Amino acid sequence: MPSAHRFVNDLTTPALLLDVDAFQHNLSVMATRLPGRQLRPHVKAHKTTALAQEQTKHGHDTFTCATIREIEGMAAAGLGLDLLLANEVVDARRLGAVVAAGIGRVTLAIDSDETLDAAVAGGVREVVIDVNIGLPRCGCDPADAGRLADRARKAGLSVRGVMGYEGHLMMVVDPTEQREKVEASMALLLRAHNDVGGELVSAGGTGTHIVNTWATEIQAGSYALMDTQYAEHNEFAFRQALSILGSVISVSRDTGSKGWAVADVGLKAQGMDHGLPTIADASVWFCSDEHVTFAPAEPVHFGDRVRVVPAHCDPTVAYHDRMWLVQGDEVVDSWPVDLKGW
Amino acid sequence: MPSAHRFVNDLTTPALLLDVDAFQHNLSVMATRLPGRQLRPHVKAHKTTALAQEQTKHGHDTFTCATIREIEGMAAAGLGLDLLLANEVVDARRLGAVVAAGIGRVTLAIDSDETLDAAVAGGVREVVIDVNIGLPRCGCDPADAGRLADRARKAGLSVRGVMGYEGHLMMVVDPTEQREKVEASMALLLRAHNDVGGELVSAGGTGTHIVNTWATEIQAGSYALMDTQYAEHNEFAFRQALSILGSVISVSRDTGSKGWAVADVGLKAQGMDHGLPTIADASVWFCSDEHVTFAPAEPVHFGDRVRVVPAHCDPTVAYHDRMWLVQGDEVVDSWPVDLKGW
Repeated sequence: MPSAHRFVNDLTTPALLLDVDAFQHNLSVMATRLPGRQLRPHVKAHKTTALAQEQTKHGHDTFTCATIREIEGMAAAGLGLDLLLANEVVDARRLGAVVAAGIGRVTLAIDSDETLDAAVAGGVREVVIDVNIGLPRCGCDPADAGRLADRARKAGLSVRGVMGYEGHLMMVVDPTEQREKVEASMALLLRAHNDVGGELVSAGGTGTHIVNTWATEIQAGSYALMDTQYAEHNEFAFRQALSILGSVISVSRDTGSKGWAVADVGLKAQGMDHGLPTIADASVWFCSDEHVTFAPAEPVHFGDRVRVVPAHCDPTVAYHDRMWLVQGDEVVDSWPVDLKGW
Repeated sequence: MPSAHRFVNDLTTPALLLDVDAFQHNLSVMATRLPGRQLRPHVKAHKTTALAQEQTKHGHDTFTCATIREIEGMAAAGLGLDLLLANEVVDARRLGAVVAAGIGRVTLAIDSDETLDAAVAGGVREVVIDVNIGLPRCGCDPADAGRLADRARKAGLSVRGVMGYEGHLMMVVDPTEQREKVEASMALLLRAHNDVGGELVSAGGTGTHIVNTWATEIQAGSYALMDTQYAEHNEFAFRQALSILGSVISVSRDTGSKGWAVADVGLKAQGMDHGLPTIADASVWFCSDEHVTFAPAEPVHFGDRVRVVPAHCDPTVAYHDRMWLVQGDEVVDSWPVDLKGW
């Protein structure tokens, strides 16, 4: 019961926290930088329709999704004005059902004859051609994009444009080097767009949202929450809004330079693909299923609360059923993480 | 609806699969090696009461848990005969409620005066003294165990013995080296047990279940499912029972030595703390939120199903709501993963 909690320290741990001030700061910064439909926020980062609703208040009413479940949930929540599934699917019937129900406009990425056929068979009416621009993942060869678009139109589909994802360039920290590499990737996408047509050149992410000036819309998601990896990009001016509240459950006898403490934030409360989380004024040693062992700079005590900042927000959020909105030590609201699963 | 699925290829992907033959093999091998109460299966590995029910059929009726939620769920499922929470907690009231309701016997690990006080305040009646035997995590100094036990008994608690976890030795592959190191760790636990008394010397895990001949019971969990990391221990003779079914959604033009394919099994379908998953006859390149990119030895095609074996089963299971029991290509049953959360 959200209303039963007034203070952070009353929460059962581990608990996913959203720092409201940092979150609103991030949304404001992004809405100034990429207003309106220059940003198509990616919901995979937060999987939370209430959070997407906040993004609409900042002027973004089109969204990017990674799973069919995210499309269904966004449409059911009344956020289906213009949803892009930026991913390929084998069976598009659940997407066709969203369109047929009149609750969402769904545009599906296709990168092959088979995905084109799946779109038609599933009752999807609008597509973008997904083009490989350097990341070895989905996307057709740029030279094949025009042919696919022609075939899609002949099959009765509306082709809204192209998309690509320069995911291999998100973590290039030097802005000049990153801009050059993004420009080369986007040249491939623009060449494909020349063959395909349509109003959309959809690309990018939080890591390239400033340097990618060629896309008509940026698919950034992490900017709303931020994680420790993107924090290296100081020029973004985003703040860490996401953390996991834990309780200290054990303290070794000497919590100075030779000792450690343990909190109840383990592998099942956070994604680990980008490495260890961080804790302010502490060195994190390792995580176990339900523990994080860390060396605090100053002694901590049994029952103390700690905020653990995950290295990667997306797979962290996907472990939790609810996020708690906090201002300082006060819990002001909570949102269900309602777009989980597939 | 489980009954609607007859074949693996009918499942929506990604889907968590339990190979019934491999699973039953693993349970039989373990029940022969550590019959009855020589094993206290750890439910954190599978978080599934239906799976624990199968473990009782193999003669194990005592269980180890890592979270309060696991204790509550096991008790509610009628599996509360003898539950050990092998972890420290700040607030033990929900455990006391299980005891008061008469649905479960709960024994709680304590490693400090504060955890002792929490046990008493929460209405827990039975404890074990958790002793640090080398892993920098929870557990008191071995020399402090007797004092804690005395204080616990004076506070009205029943002290059932000691526990320790030689987690730092699970991955020592050489049996001789592992045995020597486990013996040294267990010497610390036996010394503490000498001071504490009680019938339980609870320790170990799948990685040390053969060499640890000093514990009265072993807290192994992974043996039922297995993951790629423990598979290095050939002498265990366990089989990989857990995998994640995916669908091939994209194939690069050349799927030979220069090409790749993509399946829909990403970071939100598996724990990544132990590294990349494996796919038979393929080289796994990397995982994204909803993708695994891999180079197959033989060409694969759009829509093909692949089985992805996670490097670490525990945090993988925690991402899924249901596991599907399969024999070959047939789905024979499904179980809810009903012990998730905290």
